[in-house]
Amino acid sequence: MHTSPTPDPSLSHRRRRVPLTVLGTDGSPLPDTEVTVAQTRHAFAFGNIGFDMVALANDEAGGGSAFGGAAAGLEELADLWLGVFDTATLPFYWGAFEPQRGRPDTERLLRTARWFADRGVRVKGHPLVWHTVQPDWLLDLPLDEVERVQRERIRRDVADFAGLVDTWDAINEVVIMPVFVNGDNGITRLARSVGRIAMIRLAFDEARAANPRATLLLNDFDMSTAYECLIEGVLEAGVQIDAIGLQSHMHQGYWGEERTLEVLDRFSRYGLPLHMTETTLLSGDLMPPEIDDLNDFQPTSWPSTPEGEARQADEVVRHYRTLASHPSVESITYWGLTDDGMWLGAPGGLVRADGTPKPAYDALRDLVRGEWWSGPRASCTDAEGRVEVDGWFGDYVATLRGQDVPFRLEPTSTPMVRLPH
Amino acid sequence: MHTSPTPDPSLSHRRRRVPLTVLGTDGSPLPDTEVTVAQTRHAFAFGNIGFDMVALANDEAGGGSAFGGAAAGLEELADLWLGVFDTATLPFYWGAFEPQRGRPDTERLLRTARWFADRGVRVKGHPLVWHTVQPDWLLDLPLDEVERVQRERIRRDVADFAGLVDTWDAINEVVIMPVFVNGDNGITRLARSVGRIAMIRLAFDEARAANPRATLLLNDFDMSTAYECLIEGVLEAGVQIDAIGLQSHMHQGYWGEERTLEVLDRFSRYGLPLHMTETTLLSGDLMPPEIDDLNDFQPTSWPSTPEGEARQADEVVRHYRTLASHPSVESITYWGLTDDGMWLGAPGGLVRADGTPKPAYDALRDLVRGEWWSGPRASCTDAEGRVEVDGWFGDYVATLRGQDVPFRLEPTSTPMVRLPH
Repeated sequence: MHTSPTPDPSLSHRRRRVPLTVLGTDGSPLPDTEVTVAQTRHAFAFGNIGFDMVALANDEAGGGSAFGGAAAGLEELADLWLGVFDTATLPFYWGAFEPQRGRPDTERLLRTARWFADRGVRVKGHPLVWHTVQPDWLLDLPLDEVERVQRERIRRDVADFAGLVDTWDAINEVVIMPVFVNGDNGITRLARSVGRIAMIRLAFDEARAANPRATLLLNDFDMSTAYECLIEGVLEAGVQIDAIGLQSHMHQGYWGEERTLEVLDRFSRYGLPLHMTETTLLSGDLMPPEIDDLNDFQPTSWPSTPEGEARQADEVVRHYRTLASHPSVESITYWGLTDDGMWLGAPGGLVRADGTPKPAYDALRDLVRGEWWSGPRASCTDAEGRVEVDGWFGDYVATLRGQDVPFRLEPTSTPMVRLPH
Repeated sequence: MHTSPTPDPSLSHRRRRVPLTVLGTDGSPLPDTEVTVAQTRHAFAFGNIGFDMVALANDEAGGGSAFGGAAAGLEELADLWLGVFDTATLPFYWGAFEPQRGRPDTERLLRTARWFADRGVRVKGHPLVWHTVQPDWLLDLPLDEVERVQRERIRRDVADFAGLVDTWDAINEVVIMPVFVNGDNGITRLARSVGRIAMIRLAFDEARAANPRATLLLNDFDMSTAYECLIEGVLEAGVQIDAIGLQSHMHQGYWGEERTLEVLDRFSRYGLPLHMTETTLLSGDLMPPEIDDLNDFQPTSWPSTPEGEARQADEVVRHYRTLASHPSVESITYWGLTDDGMWLGAPGGLVRADGTPKPAYDALRDLVRGEWWSGPRASCTDAEGRVEVDGWFGDYVATLRGQDVPFRLEPTSTPMVRLPH
């Protein structure tokens, strides 16, 4: 039976106020002890793409992939990135990742993933199967060979990154996959031949086999009933989806609260977590509504404007509040940090091309690392060795007697820390 | 593997030129014998709704269902109907068929089905499950009870009409079924709870159990990828669909050859027959393109115009030629004969409200019962008792020595007739 959770603007489903019990090395409660509690990461994934950091992590000059890449100021960008976000999406577009058959870009991406992991950032891979950015060498292969190498590439890459990248967009934009006409490619041919659900099964089977602990997403931009129909077919077919990925590139305007909640209501009724995988809000002119494929509109100049920046700051906060209010949403990934190298050249970044933060950056930081964040708070344990913790679910650290002891704030378990020595 | 058949404007897939062997009562060929061969029905279904004839078959005054019903001149309308069409769709809208629980309109519909069958017309029922025109008494029932009575109604009606009605729209418009918001109804609630594919399985399982010989359709107006996704899910789930029903109410304008062929290409790749279940072309002003639900536009006056009638006649012939050119199409049902009582009050009939045929009627009759029809043709058998037959697949009669002997022209078998006595 399908039912949708009810949104709760108070965000009571995100947070908890609960006593933390502080124990000494011998396991007995420590009364009247000064303890500082500070959050270190949200359980909720506040994500952004980490494409810009590939160059930084590899000590290269920046700039220049088809899907974004800042050219300069990478160290400063990295600080801005880490000031808000805790989950990075890395690019595994097959055609860019393995332009020459048998020579995948594994080492560079591994270094990038490690760069993020070293900074406490979770890493996600995007995407394992898609009909766009395909390697040219796929075009000449017969269909059964396309299927074989697609399966092999999934197994290889998921295995190579297991432990560092444990969340994947297993397959991207399947609704249009078999009817995609903007460029010949092997994947559309295969999808047209075997059908959408067989393509999804292929992606999930191979990724699951290579990393059974991975969180695997079906991801799409199509918010219509088509995606619902596809999901229902996949579930009926017994393919295990770990989360439903919903894109929301709002180049043609902010959805608004009503539409956002309507979308969440429709897609939450399958009982699966929702990941808002690709979120864009512009700080300049909107794309005309008659554009169907966003890629068809790329003006030579698309500036960020003061009015646009004020609007974007308002909308990004409203959007994040709406998404957070829905219990099914577990992740929001913004699609880019800076306008420098932004997808489509659009002013969708939270940082201007010159590296200065837009109002939306500050607003989002104030929300995610301010209002929704538990900064260091010092207090004294009571007679039973307890201090109150009040914050969003996530990772925390208690500091006492010069030692940092991590703990996790979760929906049900009772939090406790014990001095190691 | 999914592949789409290729259209053939020569219609070679519809017809055959082949010798008919004529045998005497003793089974030996009859040479030098005069034989007249005439077609009696197409194998291809040229359909129309038969709603107007419910009143005629039941000796009632005409007029007045929500989905069409002419008020007058029923005998003349019947002649016009039979002058082109060979397959009738009858209304089984649950709310109209069983407005009072336990008192279905079975007898009236049985008489109507028999009226058509007596005139050589195949009869189809529409629809067994739909979220519109629901009985009011369903609204107060709990969901499990809604499901139970829906199942029972399918079994009852399919069984009651087996032998007379062996083709059914098992379920209608599933793409929007769980998200339909234009009026509370039990079926949308059920579909939202159990999902689209479970609804489809329910409909097909019950109808199949009640009449294993029935041709069962999934029918929809949504020609987008949503319907493709739904079909692929249903096929993966192992539900046996006998034909895919495609509506084409073109109140907002003729699709044209290109779009029509594109739709046929996409939906033919599942290897299933396509039935064009609901076809409308207007002979007056078009409905504005911004109207989303056709039911939302019902002007007080919507006249048929001379220019509109000329356009409609042109379009109806082009549309039927395009559909006939595609090997997957096995059936075209036009949605109404006369503007009198036409759905939405639209001038979509082939006959004016005053009972006179529009140019589209004459054009369609000239096509279906003229160019595509084999009228009586007299010839003499050769030395081996053969005459040539050249026509569309279907039912024929050979008349010789004062006797009528029926035979069938089929794609492969060799036609033969034998004098009974």
